[in-house]
Amino acid sequence: MIAKCLDINEKGHLTVSGVDTVDIAREFGTPTYILDENTIRENCRVYIDSMKKYFGEGSFPLFASKALSFTEIYRIVASEGMGIDCVSPGEIHTAYKAGYPMEKAYFHGNNKTDADIEMALDAGVGCFVVDNREELVSLNAAAGKRGMIQKILLRISPGIDPHTHRKVVTGSVDSKFGTAIETGQAMEMVKAAAECKNLHFAGIHCHIGSQIFDIDPFVSAADIMFRFIKDIKNETGVELEELNLGGGLGVPYVDTDPVIDYEDCIRRMAEQLRKTGESFGLKMPKIILEPGRSIVAAAGVTLYTVGSFKNITGYKSYVSIDGGMPDNPRYALYNSQYTILVANKANEERTVKCTIAGRCCESGDLIAEDIMLQTAERGDILAVLVTGAYNYSMASNYNKIPRPPVVIIKDGVPRVAVKRETFDDLVRNDI
Amino acid sequence: MIAKCLDINEKGHLTVSGVDTVDIAREFGTPTYILDENTIRENCRVYIDSMKKYFGEGSFPLFASKALSFTEIYRIVASEGMGIDCVSPGEIHTAYKAGYPMEKAYFHGNNKTDADIEMALDAGVGCFVVDNREELVSLNAAAGKRGMIQKILLRISPGIDPHTHRKVVTGSVDSKFGTAIETGQAMEMVKAAAECKNLHFAGIHCHIGSQIFDIDPFVSAADIMFRFIKDIKNETGVELEELNLGGGLGVPYVDTDPVIDYEDCIRRMAEQLRKTGESFGLKMPKIILEPGRSIVAAAGVTLYTVGSFKNITGYKSYVSIDGGMPDNPRYALYNSQYTILVANKANEERTVKCTIAGRCCESGDLIAEDIMLQTAERGDILAVLVTGAYNYSMASNYNKIPRPPVVIIKDGVPRVAVKRETFDDLVRNDI
Repeated sequence: MIAKCLDINEKGHLTVSGVDTVDIAREFGTPTYILDENTIRENCRVYIDSMKKYFGEGSFPLFASKALSFTEIYRIVASEGMGIDCVSPGEIHTAYKAGYPMEKAYFHGNNKTDADIEMALDAGVGCFVVDNREELVSLNAAAGKRGMIQKILLRISPGIDPHTHRKVVTGSVDSKFGTAIETGQAMEMVKAAAECKNLHFAGIHCHIGSQIFDIDPFVSAADIMFRFIKDIKNETGVELEELNLGGGLGVPYVDTDPVIDYEDCIRRMAEQLRKTGESFGLKMPKIILEPGRSIVAAAGVTLYTVGSFKNITGYKSYVSIDGGMPDNPRYALYNSQYTILVANKANEERTVKCTIAGRCCESGDLIAEDIMLQTAERGDILAVLVTGAYNYSMASNYNKIPRPPVVIIKDGVPRVAVKRETFDDLVRNDI
Repeated sequence: MIAKCLDINEKGHLTVSGVDTVDIAREFGTPTYILDENTIRENCRVYIDSMKKYFGEGSFPLFASKALSFTEIYRIVASEGMGIDCVSPGEIHTAYKAGYPMEKAYFHGNNKTDADIEMALDAGVGCFVVDNREELVSLNAAAGKRGMIQKILLRISPGIDPHTHRKVVTGSVDSKFGTAIETGQAMEMVKAAAECKNLHFAGIHCHIGSQIFDIDPFVSAADIMFRFIKDIKNETGVELEELNLGGGLGVPYVDTDPVIDYEDCIRRMAEQLRKTGESFGLKMPKIILEPGRSIVAAAGVTLYTVGSFKNITGYKSYVSIDGGMPDNPRYALYNSQYTILVANKANEERTVKCTIAGRCCESGDLIAEDIMLQTAERGDILAVLVTGAYNYSMASNYNKIPRPPVVIIKDGVPRVAVKRETFDDLVRNDI
């Protein structure tokens, strides 16, 4: 199966970590997001252990919590000793409420308001990844007023195109994020940062994109970043201690996607980076990576109930489900591919070519087009696999549809981590 | 200006219905959705009055509330005597809580669960627009159990392509919605519906798409639907009393979009439909239209605060705002165009070519690319116009960003209709 936690039991039902998904659907209703806790924990450990082993003491991963953000997930990653990256005061609030040790949190974002900055300082966020000049000025002033020195990294555009979807390329020169080395603007930011009395300018950050299946783009980015670290040393005398290369290692959603070994990627990355560092005569900085998708995606399955099967003679067949773009907008946004099956007929052959239609009154509300599926009829349970990342976190109430609950499975026991929204929740702020 | 309620005051600030948007931003914070109540009321009246005048007594519009759904909007349209269309139990719940007279509500959707059907019957929804066979069976059984006769329309695909965005074409044969005339499946549904003892089969419905700027696609659809009504009469003896042609009349978002006169469209449509009806020897059914966008879009303005202005030497300039795809995903989904200006510099010349970037950690989080704007810097108020439809209703909490409040302006007085979400709202269902 596409994820390790998945299997099929003697009833021919899909299981997550041994638990029958048809039972989950019966107990918790549909749609429901399922997450396998052990998968998440194992993925955290692979990053933590491999980064320590190959990059050395002091190098560590941050869980990019924009991929999946709710209270319990911060508790889980905290108990594994994982750092986090937060991209908004809402994520900071959630992590803080979860009791996450905020000194291990990095605060990202291309537009931090003055209020966001104050809030993050109140919460004791360990490091700000400063995106732009306005933020630098505001943060320096806010830290100064508190009589503190705030650790920062600067976000830099290395000018790398990792050949992924246009909407998830983030490291090219022409980007809303950070400042570019190529234009000279990054060095201007560096000089400004080095002069901020209330900031400790500790390193630089870049993020080249998502769903990257080889280490070459990371090695190329690191090469550019090392060269820049050397230039910074030459121009300002500052020797940076941290190099944050962002996230982006891919996960397989469908059988044709590559499967990569994260430990091996990190090993090979470290080998290359060490050579690069030496060639520039630099001592190896602490390396930070920011995996999000590769920590949680494969842990997730979304369950739906089929409402109708519609064969349009001479055209397509449509299977309608009781969720769709409100709980998973990734097909509507990026044409993302998914592995999908009828959970209660997981052993049966896929004989029907069909399109999976959500329940929204919107033609674009599809989850997949022209996939092969088992025969599906009203009442069947449909499972969409590898939905742990960017599903719950991107969910909306479009069509006033309540968001599904998150049910975490650990050692065969399911528990609710986020309750299903009620109709009353939908109008809670209405006057 | 692109919408009638907009103007510029003596301070050079954008106003909505005479109220200074810079004052609104100061009082309610940003981002904030503004709605002009009088615009909404006037648009309701144009449809109600014109449909009565040209189609005759008994013909009326339904507000397609998926475009904008919260408690107060149902009160407003109710007080204008407007029907509504709901697409989910969440919308039904909201309308019901608002005290909307539910006998005037039509219930749409390509996947109504058994629970949805029960809920809608409990709420006293006037008419179900039945999409598929499974729903027909379930609804007939549920109505039977209650000893009642439920009025229904059947959703039909006329096989019309109105030349709009692929994702908003809904009336073609190959669609997740309804059943197609061309394949013979619609007539099978008709016969099944006519035999359902607990259903009153009152008419047929089609919806051909969105952002349509001329009446020809509607006239073509009506031609097909009239022919089908005649076929139904011939085959089953049932003479249908209602023809629902859905929504879809467009609104201008930018200066290059056509401006259409809805009253004139309805007048011309009625003229054509009368001829068509006569040519088939049919008495004119009640005509129903389902405007959503054309009722509320132009009433809306979204206000943001600028966080940074970033000119990438030799590339683009980016203006970052404190909202983005979570409150308005339409650019990310459909590349929708908007008219945008700096609200506190509305009189100044647009001298800067720039891209409007949202605050999400996602490259695709843009609101517009390469538009001409007034000089913008941190603290300026940015106004995105014509955001009354499919903005609030599609909003998510992606990046754990709280959804903005809805502030309604009536006769120069702003009031909060939906409160801003708090950080605590974001974790309310977390365990």
